[in-house]
Amino acid sequence: MKKHYFDHVATNPLHPDVLDAMMPYLKEEFGNPMSMYEYGIKAKNAIELAREKVAALVNSKPAEIIFTASGAEANNFALRGIALARQNEGKHLLVSRMEHHSVLNSARFLEKSGFTVTYLPVDRNGVVDPDIVKKAITKETTVISVTHASSEVGTIEPIREIAKVAKERNITVHTDAVATTGNIPVDVKELGVDLLSMSAHQFYGPKGASALYVKQGTRIVPLIYGGIQESGRRAGTENVPAIVGMGKAAELASADMEKRIEYLRPLRDRIIDTISGVPNVYLTGHRENRLPAHASFCVEFIEGEAMLLLLAGKGIFAASGSACSSKALKASPVLLSMGISSSLAQGSIVFSLGTGNSPEDADYLLNEFPAVIKRLREISPYAQGWGDREGGGEECTVKE
Amino acid sequence: MKKHYFDHVATNPLHPDVLDAMMPYLKEEFGNPMSMYEYGIKAKNAIELAREKVAALVNSKPAEIIFTASGAEANNFALRGIALARQNEGKHLLVSRMEHHSVLNSARFLEKSGFTVTYLPVDRNGVVDPDIVKKAITKETTVISVTHASSEVGTIEPIREIAKVAKERNITVHTDAVATTGNIPVDVKELGVDLLSMSAHQFYGPKGASALYVKQGTRIVPLIYGGIQESGRRAGTENVPAIVGMGKAAELASADMEKRIEYLRPLRDRIIDTISGVPNVYLTGHRENRLPAHASFCVEFIEGEAMLLLLAGKGIFAASGSACSSKALKASPVLLSMGISSSLAQGSIVFSLGTGNSPEDADYLLNEFPAVIKRLREISPYAQGWGDREGGGEECTVKE
Repeated sequence: MKKHYFDHVATNPLHPDVLDAMMPYLKEEFGNPMSMYEYGIKAKNAIELAREKVAALVNSKPAEIIFTASGAEANNFALRGIALARQNEGKHLLVSRMEHHSVLNSARFLEKSGFTVTYLPVDRNGVVDPDIVKKAITKETTVISVTHASSEVGTIEPIREIAKVAKERNITVHTDAVATTGNIPVDVKELGVDLLSMSAHQFYGPKGASALYVKQGTRIVPLIYGGIQESGRRAGTENVPAIVGMGKAAELASADMEKRIEYLRPLRDRIIDTISGVPNVYLTGHRENRLPAHASFCVEFIEGEAMLLLLAGKGIFAASGSACSSKALKASPVLLSMGISSSLAQGSIVFSLGTGNSPEDADYLLNEFPAVIKRLREISPYAQGWGDREGGGEECTVKE
Repeated sequence: MKKHYFDHVATNPLHPDVLDAMMPYLKEEFGNPMSMYEYGIKAKNAIELAREKVAALVNSKPAEIIFTASGAEANNFALRGIALARQNEGKHLLVSRMEHHSVLNSARFLEKSGFTVTYLPVDRNGVVDPDIVKKAITKETTVISVTHASSEVGTIEPIREIAKVAKERNITVHTDAVATTGNIPVDVKELGVDLLSMSAHQFYGPKGASALYVKQGTRIVPLIYGGIQESGRRAGTENVPAIVGMGKAAELASADMEKRIEYLRPLRDRIIDTISGVPNVYLTGHRENRLPAHASFCVEFIEGEAMLLLLAGKGIFAASGSACSSKALKASPVLLSMGISSSLAQGSIVFSLGTGNSPEDADYLLNEFPAVIKRLREISPYAQGWGDREGGGEECTVKE
């Protein structure tokens, strides 16, 4: 059976050019970048070239890029590193309810260590209101962390406006840009942030290479101590092949981004328009201001897991909630924070597109998905009489 | 010029079979192990198979292996994770002076966070005395961390005896076995440790995959928070290709270890015996109880960096001190702790062998190295009249 991969927020296949760039570093160029001879120098040069390419992707200086092994590590490093570095100034953090578990659970760890965290509410589209940020700031606030876009509902947050509010009060601003970097334009200067997390496998780069942008002059406490790699800010032998791959993926993303978006957005729109038209299926997240390859829904009367299984049986691979929590089997806190009921949140489904998806993939999905819903509703005890309520479910619709 | 790589403690080339095992996961099997469909299931199965192979290498249960991205991460996780988990019982740690920076600097971070650390002294061979451990234990002690072997001087520590002393007092025992795992037999049960760090690129596996053994029932606070990967103990999308590679490297090491040691030890002995015979050159570390492919020396009147440069000019690649500190240009704390003078410690050089080294490589090294020393001493202001003192330098010799 042909496979139709619609879960690019979970991970992406490697771009063939990325793998080609990595291969020498998986073979003859195996040196440790800390070594002072030929092998080491070549490895060191390779990671510095990758650093330049990643920096160019987000409009930073190369020295402002710190490589990490995952987006989760970058988020832990950012939140805890700044909270600790500034703890003498205050111990209060602002974190939005749209955040990935790696941000939320870092915040919870800090709460156990004597910090106070205010979790910022969002509207029905999942948008954090800069005015609410303003009101939540106290004299103790040192850090704010708001995701650039949620991989669960696709909504792009008004980071520039939030950063503006925060900078007026000397608050360090972090954004988790794992879902956006390499997929839409990300410019650290335009956003006005101090820290920004990104991950290569979200833009056709390898797993095992991610990065944290740290604005020049920002004090940060390391998460991983040891040798003097990454200017003493992140220890551990550099994963040279993966970092080289991240550099190549960044270069390709910089060059092809516009073309990719132009290709993917109409496909996404077709999926959103068609699936939103199925009775009692609701788009989640903002209709306009969302990731260009992201279509997410709540399907009434059905559990996400059941949809995933039936879709997988037809060769269609999608997600329900975030990849990192897909096996936790709890209603997504992100969806609940948007005011979606716990029962409707169970019916969450996310289709995220990639450059490998053809229009025929979308045709196939749009042909099969309504049939899957129909079949599941026929056997769902919750769906009895759902037809009577057609059009009545407003829980997930978008307020423009 | 032919290259002669004698820096296997810095990093190793990938075994070709390891790369072969990784390739499918760099290509078509790109799934996220957290995903519940085919791609995800295959990726998940692959990392669980790797976990079994790594567990077999150290005689643990698979569920006791937590994958990390580096040995440094494993060491940070171990030391800080146990210190935090047991902080209500006491806030005192024992750490040996032979430790890698990732252990030492984790200990220093804990000191800043209100913990007390006793740094255990070592003898001239770099051996930690279990009796000294016993005396250093207080009612507040919860963790002891002693390296299984130092990558700087090759000495293998009496971990079993140290663990025995510690377990009588209910102290959690961690050993940094990055230099030993995959290279000499490592058995967590025989050693009697609760935690053990290892790293794939030290035994012909890839960079970016390491692991921490955590004995069943041991409470540990995560270092990286986020999703529920690694049973909720280490978040972040798994680096599937690297983990698969680590599994394959572990399998090969299990099968070939004896053969590899039988090949490497005589080569090492030839290097030690010949180079120790050069006037005013002293073996560092224990003569017998040392890593089978490790030969380390202090060369009087010469700086390590100068030796490395001249050797590199002859296609010989070696190390001076640990890879992670090679660019820090400070006298190695490990050597100083062994009672080696600061000036002699500057002349540190380490030759570490791998299966790719031929007897002819060793011949070449043993032919070229004395000439390099001679040339450097001719231009060294410290070496004036050194010939008169021949045989008088006892700083580094081994006490049996």
